Amino acid sequence: MAAPVRARPTGVGRTTESPLPAVPGASQEEIRRQNLGAVLRYVHLHGPTSRAELTSQLGLNRSTIGALAADLVASGLVTEGAPASVRRAGRPSLVVSPRSDRVYAHALSIDAARLRAARVGLGGQILDLREIPRPSGTSAIDAVRPLADLVRDMERSVAPDALLVGGAVAATDTTREPDGRIRIAGVDETLGVALEAEFSAGPGFVTGDLADIAALAEQVRGVATGIDDIIYLHGDLGISAGIIVGGRLVIGHRGHSGKVGHMVVNPNGLPCGCGSRGCWETEISEAALLRHAGRDPSDRAAVAEVLRAAADGDRTAGAAVAQVADWLGFGVANLVNVVNPDAVVFGGSLRDIFTAGADVVRERLDTMPLPASREYLRLRAAALGRDAVLIGAAELAFDKLLADPLNVGVVGQMDPVDPI
Amino acid sequence: MAAPVRARPTGVGRTTESPLPAVPGASQEEIRRQNLGAVLRYVHLHGPTSRAELTSQLGLNRSTIGALAADLVASGLVTEGAPASVRRAGRPSLVVSPRSDRVYAHALSIDAARLRAARVGLGGQILDLREIPRPSGTSAIDAVRPLADLVRDMERSVAPDALLVGGAVAATDTTREPDGRIRIAGVDETLGVALEAEFSAGPGFVTGDLADIAALAEQVRGVATGIDDIIYLHGDLGISAGIIVGGRLVIGHRGHSGKVGHMVVNPNGLPCGCGSRGCWETEISEAALLRHAGRDPSDRAAVAEVLRAAADGDRTAGAAVAQVADWLGFGVANLVNVVNPDAVVFGGSLRDIFTAGADVVRERLDTMPLPASREYLRLRAAALGRDAVLIGAAELAFDKLLADPLNVGVVGQMDPVDPI
Repeated sequence: MAAPVRARPTGVGRTTESPLPAVPGASQEEIRRQNLGAVLRYVHLHGPTSRAELTSQLGLNRSTIGALAADLVASGLVTEGAPASVRRAGRPSLVVSPRSDRVYAHALSIDAARLRAARVGLGGQILDLREIPRPSGTSAIDAVRPLADLVRDMERSVAPDALLVGGAVAATDTTREPDGRIRIAGVDETLGVALEAEFSAGPGFVTGDLADIAALAEQVRGVATGIDDIIYLHGDLGISAGIIVGGRLVIGHRGHSGKVGHMVVNPNGLPCGCGSRGCWETEISEAALLRHAGRDPSDRAAVAEVLRAAADGDRTAGAAVAQVADWLGFGVANLVNVVNPDAVVFGGSLRDIFTAGADVVRERLDTMPLPASREYLRLRAAALGRDAVLIGAAELAFDKLLADPLNVGVVGQMDPVDPI
Repeated sequence: MAAPVRARPTGVGRTTESPLPAVPGASQEEIRRQNLGAVLRYVHLHGPTSRAELTSQLGLNRSTIGALAADLVASGLVTEGAPASVRRAGRPSLVVSPRSDRVYAHALSIDAARLRAARVGLGGQILDLREIPRPSGTSAIDAVRPLADLVRDMERSVAPDALLVGGAVAATDTTREPDGRIRIAGVDETLGVALEAEFSAGPGFVTGDLADIAALAEQVRGVATGIDDIIYLHGDLGISAGIIVGGRLVIGHRGHSGKVGHMVVNPNGLPCGCGSRGCWETEISEAALLRHAGRDPSDRAAVAEVLRAAADGDRTAGAAVAQVADWLGFGVANLVNVVNPDAVVFGGSLRDIFTAGADVVRERLDTMPLPASREYLRLRAAALGRDAVLIGAAELAFDKLLADPLNVGVVGQMDPVDPI
């Protein structure tokens, strides 16, 4: 299997906005570029911000902020204007705003059932979104052509002066091999290459693991803002995790960290598609919930019905939720002992299961991990929902712009003409 | 429980020796200090090095290296001399050597059974070592006074011009609380404070988790040199891990990461002292090996006998080793799916169990983790043995010196006079 090359975002998720460290002997020009990035990152994350706040938050002096803002305005990345309301006497501090309507990235996602493409503006707003079903049994590479079609379709309505700064694709590729085993291919470098080949011009695509990217999104704009040690659990057909430690994503030696769905939690449990037995996935997936509820395990649409029935007091459905929630808490407890995170975030299909069975999950977490590991633990339902992956992918795509704002401006628009 | 404050070593374990990045607007003086640190770190890690090699390895020019070396010589941190053997014609490049005999750190460790104190010279040599038993039932704080006595005893034979640059203490404090549960206190800040209170002068002590520190040692000077994604497993009375991801230690939100001994691997297993059931420790500890071999589980001295008997073909002992090795592989497989490390290192008592049962461990790892996660995995027995913890603690203690060599030189010797 080819080793995937995955983006290691350097700045995404940083909770401090201070200027980046320079290399030894950094020139004034290099320092200026880094400071431009710090200002742009701040308004990207926090929205319209007064020069006064930028001055105090970034530790730069007033005239420097003024000059940096002017450069960013000239590059078409931000606007400056009077504040909407003026509360204090005296001359108001100008407000610097990201040009979300003009500066944007392409964010793509490939999950078990859907292909999605979005244009996301600087500042994190989704400007346009297209979605189609993913035919079952197809690989991530098979998704390249339909995703490219969605992108081209979106590009047709983009204003002529808009600035495309990059693209990113989030995928978790679970494919069944000829030997019957489920292999998790991670995200192969060929995915990004194949996407780029679809377009004759454009800034290209970085790739990332879907759970990693959703974790970043929740850390940058969701329920885990400002938290540095996070386990984000993503439920789709399988279960995977995005783990952030000390503010940085755990990528793994070859990009395969976070395959927590294949931790064995029940040595006497059911066979798993991966060839092992009693994997966490066999106990907490949607299929497990449906099985316990006496439904067809492959009928994903019935998950919502089971959760609703449980909420309405149906005993079979309630017991099914409790059993899955118990195993959910069991596995989280093990992960908490390993990583000692500040927060565990439940996303994808696990969001609803956590919400429905939170008491049962908490009971496990109140007893299983060591007291020291669980003492400050926060459990949270993901906030960004289905958009997390697209918002996170856009953060990856914006990373280069935010590291060196003026250098990306030359990239220009994606060629809207279809390749041969 | 008080939150422990643990050292986050910034430079320890770095596999690149290039000069540190400077802050924006770094002065020539700051850049010089960082370059001094880069040169000193290089000879600390690699031993005597020619100016020519330093020039090429650090990417600095020849005259800069000459000036930096001269500064370090003047500070008494290194010596310069002709190489031992000259192979090429022409003027030989001077060799820069760390002054291991003069510049040293205090390295202390508190494990389940022993208290150890060492003086470790720049370059990583153990210059002096004292060891006494740790009375059972005592806490880490109870170890402060006897450790301080060992330090004072070692200090009596230190040359007058020697330079003490810092100290570090490694501990894993497993104490049984009044409610009968075993709590893992991590390493409380009070431990370092209490040690400092024992001495009226001196550069102080940083604290760290024993498994974390041993992991660093194996990465800097052991079997995992140059490897950035490592799970180091340490067996003592309990089992814990030092996890290094992307070259940096995983500390955890409150410093309690790596409590892998309390992952539940066998939901139907034996009760654990922590209050849970079927923890990994209950299946892979020395006590488990002794239990399966029909020996007294508390007779730690018998572990070596069981391993020897297994090697000699004794069936009961062999089956005991195989059973423990199987559970060892089981838990490692789960960790590999979570972290996707490049290498797993077996240390402490797990070193011998891994060595004796490597085939059984490998069998689990050949089947349980996902193919992508296990594909490039290396399993290794720890190389540094009992000294790993002391060598790692010294690395923590040297960190400040290596970050700013000339600033630590003023610290001077520890006051050899006992406090009242």
